Amino acid sequence: MHAYRTHTCGALRASDAGTTARISGWVHRKRDHGGLLFIDLRDHYGLTQCVIAQGSPVFEAADRLRPESVITVTGEVVRREAGTINPRLPTGEIELRVRELAVQSEAQVLPIQVAGDAEFPEDLRLRYRFLDLRREKQHRNILLRSQVITSIRRRMVDQGFTEFQTPILTASSPEGARDYLVPSRLHPGTFYALPQAPQQFKQLAMVAGFDRYFQIAPCFRDEASRADRSPGEFYQLDFEMSFVTQEDVFAAIEPVLHGVFEEFSDFSGTKRAVTPAPFPRIPFETAMLEFGSDKPDLRNPIRIRDVTEQFRGGAFGLFARNIEKGSVVRAIPAPGAGGNPRSFFDKLNEWARESGAGGLGYITFEGGEAKGPIARNLEADRAAAIREACGLKDGDAVFFACDKVEAAAKFAGQVRTRLGNELGLIEKDAYRFCWVTDFPMYELNEETGQIDFSHNPFSMPQGELEALNTQDPLTIKAYQYDIVCNGIELSSGAIRNHRPDIMIRAFEIAGYSAEAVEERFGGMLNAFRYGAPPHGGSAPGIDRIVMLLADEPNIREVILFPMNQQAQDLMMGAPAPVEPARLKELHIRLDLPPVKGAAGPKAS
Amino acid sequence: MHAYRTHTCGALRASDAGTTARISGWVHRKRDHGGLLFIDLRDHYGLTQCVIAQGSPVFEAADRLRPESVITVTGEVVRREAGTINPRLPTGEIELRVRELAVQSEAQVLPIQVAGDAEFPEDLRLRYRFLDLRREKQHRNILLRSQVITSIRRRMVDQGFTEFQTPILTASSPEGARDYLVPSRLHPGTFYALPQAPQQFKQLAMVAGFDRYFQIAPCFRDEASRADRSPGEFYQLDFEMSFVTQEDVFAAIEPVLHGVFEEFSDFSGTKRAVTPAPFPRIPFETAMLEFGSDKPDLRNPIRIRDVTEQFRGGAFGLFARNIEKGSVVRAIPAPGAGGNPRSFFDKLNEWARESGAGGLGYITFEGGEAKGPIARNLEADRAAAIREACGLKDGDAVFFACDKVEAAAKFAGQVRTRLGNELGLIEKDAYRFCWVTDFPMYELNEETGQIDFSHNPFSMPQGELEALNTQDPLTIKAYQYDIVCNGIELSSGAIRNHRPDIMIRAFEIAGYSAEAVEERFGGMLNAFRYGAPPHGGSAPGIDRIVMLLADEPNIREVILFPMNQQAQDLMMGAPAPVEPARLKELHIRLDLPPVKGAAGPKAS
Repeated sequence: MHAYRTHTCGALRASDAGTTARISGWVHRKRDHGGLLFIDLRDHYGLTQCVIAQGSPVFEAADRLRPESVITVTGEVVRREAGTINPRLPTGEIELRVRELAVQSEAQVLPIQVAGDAEFPEDLRLRYRFLDLRREKQHRNILLRSQVITSIRRRMVDQGFTEFQTPILTASSPEGARDYLVPSRLHPGTFYALPQAPQQFKQLAMVAGFDRYFQIAPCFRDEASRADRSPGEFYQLDFEMSFVTQEDVFAAIEPVLHGVFEEFSDFSGTKRAVTPAPFPRIPFETAMLEFGSDKPDLRNPIRIRDVTEQFRGGAFGLFARNIEKGSVVRAIPAPGAGGNPRSFFDKLNEWARESGAGGLGYITFEGGEAKGPIARNLEADRAAAIREACGLKDGDAVFFACDKVEAAAKFAGQVRTRLGNELGLIEKDAYRFCWVTDFPMYELNEETGQIDFSHNPFSMPQGELEALNTQDPLTIKAYQYDIVCNGIELSSGAIRNHRPDIMIRAFEIAGYSAEAVEERFGGMLNAFRYGAPPHGGSAPGIDRIVMLLADEPNIREVILFPMNQQAQDLMMGAPAPVEPARLKELHIRLDLPPVKGAAGPKAS
Repeated sequence: MHAYRTHTCGALRASDAGTTARISGWVHRKRDHGGLLFIDLRDHYGLTQCVIAQGSPVFEAADRLRPESVITVTGEVVRREAGTINPRLPTGEIELRVRELAVQSEAQVLPIQVAGDAEFPEDLRLRYRFLDLRREKQHRNILLRSQVITSIRRRMVDQGFTEFQTPILTASSPEGARDYLVPSRLHPGTFYALPQAPQQFKQLAMVAGFDRYFQIAPCFRDEASRADRSPGEFYQLDFEMSFVTQEDVFAAIEPVLHGVFEEFSDFSGTKRAVTPAPFPRIPFETAMLEFGSDKPDLRNPIRIRDVTEQFRGGAFGLFARNIEKGSVVRAIPAPGAGGNPRSFFDKLNEWARESGAGGLGYITFEGGEAKGPIARNLEADRAAAIREACGLKDGDAVFFACDKVEAAAKFAGQVRTRLGNELGLIEKDAYRFCWVTDFPMYELNEETGQIDFSHNPFSMPQGELEALNTQDPLTIKAYQYDIVCNGIELSSGAIRNHRPDIMIRAFEIAGYSAEAVEERFGGMLNAFRYGAPPHGGSAPGIDRIVMLLADEPNIREVILFPMNQQAQDLMMGAPAPVEPARLKELHIRLDLPPVKGAAGPKAS
């Protein structure tokens, strides 16, 4: 018989009754039922009920065991009596009558409990992560992550992609302000950097002639923690393709995202719907207009409408005057909201004021009429036009945001989200994907009056060199796109600018000389001078995908051994001081800030 | 029609003749055949011959193209004439008659050629790695690496393993002398370390209840470069299992290694044989005796024999006297070597002297008699006993190493290797695996006279606590094992010591107090105190596996973007100086060694 187990703790069934089995695992729960000791033994695969009668030679040893001790038990598999069968447990029809017991590892008193649903402070959970991970939810989350990544890999290979590992010890990027640095021992005074993303390497892989690259890539950014991004390191599905248009990129990755979300869409217990490919493509301008955001949550059915013309020169003076000064009016339809009491509208108005808006005007529609404070001051035909523009009917309402274009869009987006939630309109149990496309290449810097890159300066401008040479820069769009799911941006991507001449001109428009471009980005430019294919890609965040599938708002719940928000590993004790001799070897020494409260010259 | 391609450069066949196709790629070769311009267009997938007639409107543009420029060509697919078919090329039956040509990227004059077999200095190849990788051999090697890793992942999952990512920014290990350090910006004066291996994390994953972990794990070691290990970073197939014996570990990983070697065994063009599972298990002592090495190359059929008794007190005085003083005699059989001229033996003797041995005595067997200088001084029955012990026949020879046990083993091993090569005995086209097991737990430090750990202090001693308390430490073996292929160690592994009481006793024998053990390894010990399963694993080197399969002696040939031997990335320019402001943010400053030749106080 095997030293530790003939079966896992999830394997025994009624059909095994009468056989002798050996299982090993952790003492999950222990109950003493008048002379019978019940032990729920747990391993990675499941839970098996073990029974020891008081007279047994191993009773005393079993009785002494603390929860989470590791034991090996051997005995007869016995069918449970009808009344004691546990249908929720795959092993629930049997129990193991223990004859032999070996203690593999005794547990001390636990700092956090494994069995049960008690909550513990996060720092305790992280310090004892090896215990925390034994809890069912945590265990499931981490397995989900692994399965998701395995599924993504398989699907990427099926799409003809090849996975490569790019270097982790590399050079600091030109904008490497948040790079982690690694001092070189062999080359005094110099440093490696950990990559914020393998962007340059994947583009060089394309220049090297590999056609479809991907990597579940570790990335490093020395940034303050956010709920959806770990401090320190995070993973992305980094991919890049050669000889492709934007639509080819979409067509390659949509089956992967759809497939993986579909595969794990019932992880939370309820099957969720997933947008079928092709995902909707929403131009940036449309996204800002209809959703008030470049991360549209398509589960919310509300679409914002522009009703500037309906208010222009109208009787509702406040809006009409603002429109004259360059404002726009955005209508946020609120289906079914018309029947709400006055307090509903007042509360929203108050929230709007607290959010910094002037207030939140509205119209309700009832019995074929427009009602409410704005309607009272507005021509009936204008109100009817608004009703029609928003597709509203009796019993509905509509709210208004009147401000300069960008501010109106932003506020209308917030109202849309709030109304969607308050009115219970958000589609439940769904993953709704879309692409946001056609981002502007440039934007006006309001402070300097100069033209800046809006997003990624390395994206290919639509219209290429001719657009740069002939169009108003502020009208030029880039082949740049975001993939968004349920209002969460999974990644940015782009068709890259692979032409040195176009890149230098693009930077010139943003105020950089050719020399400055060569100095800062000479490495890539040079590579492009030896034959570069048109190429593009993206890099959806793995952690965010798993968060969505696990329905976890905190990224630390989907990482095996996460750092805390202060970028500390409480379990391993990192970061930590090191011996001065080690620093000496690395040709550095500490340069610490003055200690607060230490005796300064003026202290006495 | 797609902007870049309807087909890849490897796709067109005779059956496509008559259709219009568009392909994109790199200008591999260009030939002008009297009014016809031939361009071999290359992409990731293959090569297609394109033809442009002199009168064509695109002739001039094509004629100007430098090799490695990227172009898109459109035209008719035409069957080649019988005499011009290229059977070695999948597209060799057709050519593309170019009607349209678009230049996507013009190439400058190349620093290294892509087409052809010219050799270039390594630093030039690494600096222009994106060009080097376009060459067929390099391209194939990198694809092999990716396919091998994908295959390993699939096979590990099939064996019930789950892949997890362990942290890359972590704590310095207790013996972290070769750790790369990363200064923390948020916590002045402290450092992360990059893991030399995820050893502690994988053991903690077992303590956390995950049963079978693996990871294609990036590992980091700030070490001088070796041919078979990259400076800086390398990858290993890190795995760990709970509730297992040593044989369970072997049984889990053998199908993976056998399978992956079998799958890629014809990469070099000739199908190679692969040891079927179960692989031979060779105890460390046997390995040292029969192979003179703990990395036996089983392709070499020679087995070393101990013939000390056959020489003890015999007429061959040199060996007899040495045996009295504690030496042993090892016989290295040399099948078929008996007929070699005297010069063969003289050359070996000279090599032995140059290698630091006294010389290399031998006996040849011929006509039923033992011959040669040693045989002349040795009793015939002793010579016959040696012949029998070594299983030799007429026409064979046998060589001798006489020295203290370890020196004799080492030298005999060198002779074995040399004879195997010189006599052409090494099995060709084979991957021969074995496990070396039962490594000693302790060894005597000849200098201090104290007992040290031989290899890994964290392995479980065979016999556990009882062995530690009752056996001579130098006789205790560990559950520690190496996996060896063709004489190359792919990895060490062990059943781990998961019991704090056994660990503290094991360290006590090696001279460490319980306090010292708690101080240095308290993290792991504490985790083991909350219920730890028996567990074990190993970590075969990915780079070495790919080197074996690609038949490449240089690790840089199987890495996408490798560093050079001085741990520099010549393409990206890493490591590099950084701005003082960045260092200030990280709370460090440089502490450079004095510049050689700089003006010191005594210079004038």
